[in-house]
Amino acid sequence: MTEPTTLLLALDLMGTFVFAISGAAAGVKSRLDVFGVSVLAFVAGNAGGVIRDVLLGSVPPAAISDWRYVAVSLVAGVATFLWYPNVKRVQHVVLLFDAAGLGIFAVSGAQKALAYVVHPFAAVLLGMLTGIGGSMVRDVLVKRVPVVLRTEVYAIAALAGAAIVVAGHLLHWPPTATTISGAMLCIVMRLIALRRGWNLPVADQPGRPVVKRK
Amino acid sequence: MTEPTTLLLALDLMGTFVFAISGAAAGVKSRLDVFGVSVLAFVAGNAGGVIRDVLLGSVPPAAISDWRYVAVSLVAGVATFLWYPNVKRVQHVVLLFDAAGLGIFAVSGAQKALAYVVHPFAAVLLGMLTGIGGSMVRDVLVKRVPVVLRTEVYAIAALAGAAIVVAGHLLHWPPTATTISGAMLCIVMRLIALRRGWNLPVADQPGRPVVKRK
Amino acid sequence: MTEPTTLLLALDLMGTFVFAISGAAAGVKSRLDVFGVSVLAFVAGNAGGVIRDVLLGSVPPAAISDWRYVAVSLVAGVATFLWYPNVKRVQHVVLLFDAAGLGIFAVSGAQKALAYVVHPFAAVLLGMLTGIGGSMVRDVLVKRVPVVLRTEVYAIAALAGAAIVVAGHLLHWPPTATTISGAMLCIVMRLIALRRGWNLPVADQPGRPVVKRK
Repeated sequence: MTEPTTLLLALDLMGTFVFAISGAAAGVKSRLDVFGVSVLAFVAGNAGGVIRDVLLGSVPPAAISDWRYVAVSLVAGVATFLWYPNVKRVQHVVLLFDAAGLGIFAVSGAQKALAYVVHPFAAVLLGMLTGIGGSMVRDVLVKRVPVVLRTEVYAIAALAGAAIVVAGHLLHWPPTATTISGAMLCIVMRLIALRRGWNLPVADQPGRPVVKRK
Repeated sequence: MTEPTTLLLALDLMGTFVFAISGAAAGVKSRLDVFGVSVLAFVAGNAGGVIRDVLLGSVPPAAISDWRYVAVSLVAGVATFLWYPNVKRVQHVVLLFDAAGLGIFAVSGAQKALAYVVHPFAAVLLGMLTGIGGSMVRDVLVKRVPVVLRTEVYAIAALAGAAIVVAGHLLHWPPTATTISGAMLCIVMRLIALRRGWNLPVADQPGRPVVKRK
Repeated sequence: MTEPTTLLLALDLMGTFVFAISGAAAGVKSRLDVFGVSVLAFVAGNAGGVIRDVLLGSVPPAAISDWRYVAVSLVAGVATFLWYPNVKRVQHVVLLFDAAGLGIFAVSGAQKALAYVVHPFAAVLLGMLTGIGGSMVRDVLVKRVPVVLRTEVYAIAALAGAAIVVAGHLLHWPPTATTISGAMLCIVMRLIALRRGWNLPVADQPGRPVVKRK
């Protein structure tokens, strides 16, 4: 039990960090000031974990009772604000860190659900929801249609990552190995989808590789 | 106790199905692909029930721990996507199935709240929130002002439906009868309001019956 | 224990009232009818408290189990609708009552979290989230980027108010005094920020004091 617990904390803090960067970058893109960027970093970084904890009945959620989640979110927010004072290429930053957060939270959600002894099916679904929750809340707050609705391989990537963790649990494989494998699978699926999207030319900007359906 | 419990499951799955169709149709209208439409169908179909279960402390919510909710949502989502490849008249589909979901979830919310022995007043309110929750989340995700804010008879219809169920419970009427009556009352109230709206001509499209305040 | 409990109820109802007014005014500004305005008043007035109660595991939330929250919300909603039939200066009403709600819910959130014996750090954070929750949900529903993301001194004002309450608790100061001080500090911080914003001329409307970054 200690291994998955330490693992869960490490995953959660990493996921919070990368989702907070994606939230901060989305804030920079929406021309928010440093305060708005920090709040959006905090919300994006912690929404997924809070949704997971509320749905499991694990309250108050870890993101609120442990100061490290706030610290990690603020560092990510302020650093992103300083590094990206303008919106140049910031859309790529949102999507890259969003992919990392998706993978990490998908496996952390599945992992924590298993620790609460829910049904394996529910653990997979909860992993997916934990992964997509942060980006949904982030996009709604800056008035964008959530990336999970606009992108082919998103919820499915999170589902695949969570399924690896749950399958490994049922087969008694070592949790660290399945967790890393699940997160990597999800992230690689997303990056391949993003790369394919970036290479597709868009009609009204011929010859320039752009993000498909911005 | 068995009657309301079986009834609750049947209601929940029906409500999930029709709200999932309304979510999928809203996704088609927003020109999402089949993946986005499926995610929106799942979220719209289950948000109301998840909100109800979280507010009652019944976690993990039924929508996550029971695979049938996912199956029903995906069938509704994919079927709607295939049936409505273009946006023609799809706004009507959103509103018709939304009315059905509103009525069904209003009574299922009230019914489940009564099973958790909350105050009758709270049961009515929770029924209303369960009914309006799914459409609020659906509309926010596709960047529309929620239908509950734009339409006269919406929250009130859900309130009326839930009140019938709670009144019937206090008067020891058979739950199946009051549940069906409550849902029908809510749906009929919404359909009358919709019909009135559809018959009102809108200034800039003279002579054509359209949805009032799209 | 009775003093903070009575205090908490009074705070909650006051906070609900002023946030409901801010929600109703936002609804009038978005040209909703009296039904939409009432729903938005109810949601804005109670979202913060519901988020707080769900995160603390205090379910069903007070806003749902106690009829006074609904009554207070509806009175605020209908009164605002009647007083502000047009949108003139209504943006100021949103922001003024929003400031009052922010301060009141920040201290009520911290106060209730302390009653649930969470860590002092979590109590401060929960106070902040309770304060900003209502305005976030309100702004998302009428498709605005939430004020907490657009404004410099917002989350920080709520944080300061909640910190006073928690510090006073740790130092065994009388809860009523620290609660009132905390709320006042937060409100004054917001009003100073608003006043500074109102006095800043905006480029395309020279000579007229306007709200900065509407």
